[in-house]
Amino acid sequence: MMQDTSSKTPPLFDRVALIGLGLIGSSLARVIRQRGLARHISGFAQSQKTRTAVKELGIVDSVAASASACVKEADLVILCVPVGAMGAVAQEIAGALKPGAILSDAGSVKKAVLESISPHVPQGVHFIPGHPIAGTENTGPHAGFAELFDGRWCVLTPLESGGTAYGQAVERLTHFWSDCGSQVEIMDAKHHDLVLAITSHVPHLIAYNIVGTAADLEDVTRSEVIKYSAGGFRDFTRIAASDPTMWRDVFLSNSEAVLEMLARFSEDLTALQRAIRWKDADALFNLFSRTRQIRRSIIEAGQETPESDFGRSHGSDEKAGE
Amino acid sequence: MMQDTSSKTPPLFDRVALIGLGLIGSSLARVIRQRGLARHISGFAQSQKTRTAVKELGIVDSVAASASACVKEADLVILCVPVGAMGAVAQEIAGALKPGAILSDAGSVKKAVLESISPHVPQGVHFIPGHPIAGTENTGPHAGFAELFDGRWCVLTPLESGGTAYGQAVERLTHFWSDCGSQVEIMDAKHHDLVLAITSHVPHLIAYNIVGTAADLEDVTRSEVIKYSAGGFRDFTRIAASDPTMWRDVFLSNSEAVLEMLARFSEDLTALQRAIRWKDADALFNLFSRTRQIRRSIIEAGQETPESDFGRSHGSDEKAGE
Repeated sequence: MMQDTSSKTPPLFDRVALIGLGLIGSSLARVIRQRGLARHISGFAQSQKTRTAVKELGIVDSVAASASACVKEADLVILCVPVGAMGAVAQEIAGALKPGAILSDAGSVKKAVLESISPHVPQGVHFIPGHPIAGTENTGPHAGFAELFDGRWCVLTPLESGGTAYGQAVERLTHFWSDCGSQVEIMDAKHHDLVLAITSHVPHLIAYNIVGTAADLEDVTRSEVIKYSAGGFRDFTRIAASDPTMWRDVFLSNSEAVLEMLARFSEDLTALQRAIRWKDADALFNLFSRTRQIRRSIIEAGQETPESDFGRSHGSDEKAGE
Repeated sequence: MMQDTSSKTPPLFDRVALIGLGLIGSSLARVIRQRGLARHISGFAQSQKTRTAVKELGIVDSVAASASACVKEADLVILCVPVGAMGAVAQEIAGALKPGAILSDAGSVKKAVLESISPHVPQGVHFIPGHPIAGTENTGPHAGFAELFDGRWCVLTPLESGGTAYGQAVERLTHFWSDCGSQVEIMDAKHHDLVLAITSHVPHLIAYNIVGTAADLEDVTRSEVIKYSAGGFRDFTRIAASDPTMWRDVFLSNSEAVLEMLARFSEDLTALQRAIRWKDADALFNLFSRTRQIRRSIIEAGQETPESDFGRSHGSDEKAGE
């Protein structure tokens, strides 16, 4: 697994700065070190507790005292903070960014991040929004691991106005994410937000929603919900256990696309509800047959294991929670 | 795993008949044989293709030519057919049932099954509705396995009017499901349907629904949905790949409880939609924090593995599909 290329070729970047050291930031630190992608990794996190944890874990070369100090002299800066905090962090570090540096992020929403960071980016700094589509429901620096990005997609949404030097920076960042194990895709920020609204944001929202509905019932006790969760419910609880701050920001900053997709979802659900009420057996059967094919395609695309239980029965080396 | 008790104690039942040999029926056949729970297993399936497959698999002692022939002389008969077919099967076998036999089923809905089977049950036959809460999205006799019921719940919803002999039959059936690896719970049929509506039926419905919504988009291509499904969507596709016939019947026959739970779900979703539109950050954060606790409880109750990826990374011994 370890690819120590230091003796042959120089690392891709001299100094990398990671702002935010939760699941994504700490996983990046681990993979950068494991695969020798930078000579020096500097990290900063808002909370003292996280900074102390990262020092103890020893996954970065230096834990900075401030965001500005962290990015000084960095060739690559990646903001791994909740989407709602991106603008403030960009403003804070703007003056300290090195000319020629690449500034990127790992936010799940791209248009809002583009709009909140762009105004602060100094001339000569290459700002390339990014989104590694990878994650677990666990949070914090202990939850990270070097293999998080393996085989996953990373979407970059570069600015259209960039020149030659910008194009080269995009290539270099693409190279970086490939070395982290990801497949890189270039996309328009607005389209990214629409794609993610249906593949990630709305699924999370309805998972949060049904878990909330179940928790509020009077006729069915909470212990019954938990006891019989294997019937389908538990598959929703995993994603309904994701980081609340991150997801609050996702919905607030991608509200337009989320509301659009949600409207379609509700429209379809109302039709389904009507089919149940009027006992339209064919309508139900047709939908249920159609959806099967989608899953087959996902398995064929290598984005899922065909195991019925997601491999639950193999459960062994548990990852550390928060 | 194999518990061959034949040399010490006689098996729990002399002859067991299984009507319907899909995932549940074929798993029952396997576990009954593996743990020596009956001296003889007879099976019947409506489709010739399934009967041939079961003969080739050799998981029952005899494949009968009709449902009536299958249940003749059986001490325990379990109907493992879709809920909508229960009434017709009960009518067909009624005359062939042995006095003193136990008649049960494995349907996911209990009130409708109770109502459709009851009128056909002859005097002296003990009818005890049952529901093993276990399953995968795979169907057919090849998809079954002896361990399907291990650690899962099996709900029995016995009739209230039963006498002493009936009570003993319930005890015997409880013993049977325990030997199959399940924990048995006694419940009222109506309450069962309400509990299952929220823990299983509505989750399946909204999973089917979002997969359908995603398939119908014009602005996001189907290949993009598949490509980026790891962001949350794929977790819904597993349950949206479940057997269409079975699920059509579940929704048609548990429509009352499903519509009640669906109304609550939609109400809550509308409130969430409104919170997004009006950027009510606190409402979102509070819900997202609350739902995390439910997942922790499910893990503590042993109904889930805490692994972030459901153990996907361990994916190895794939089970045969249809």
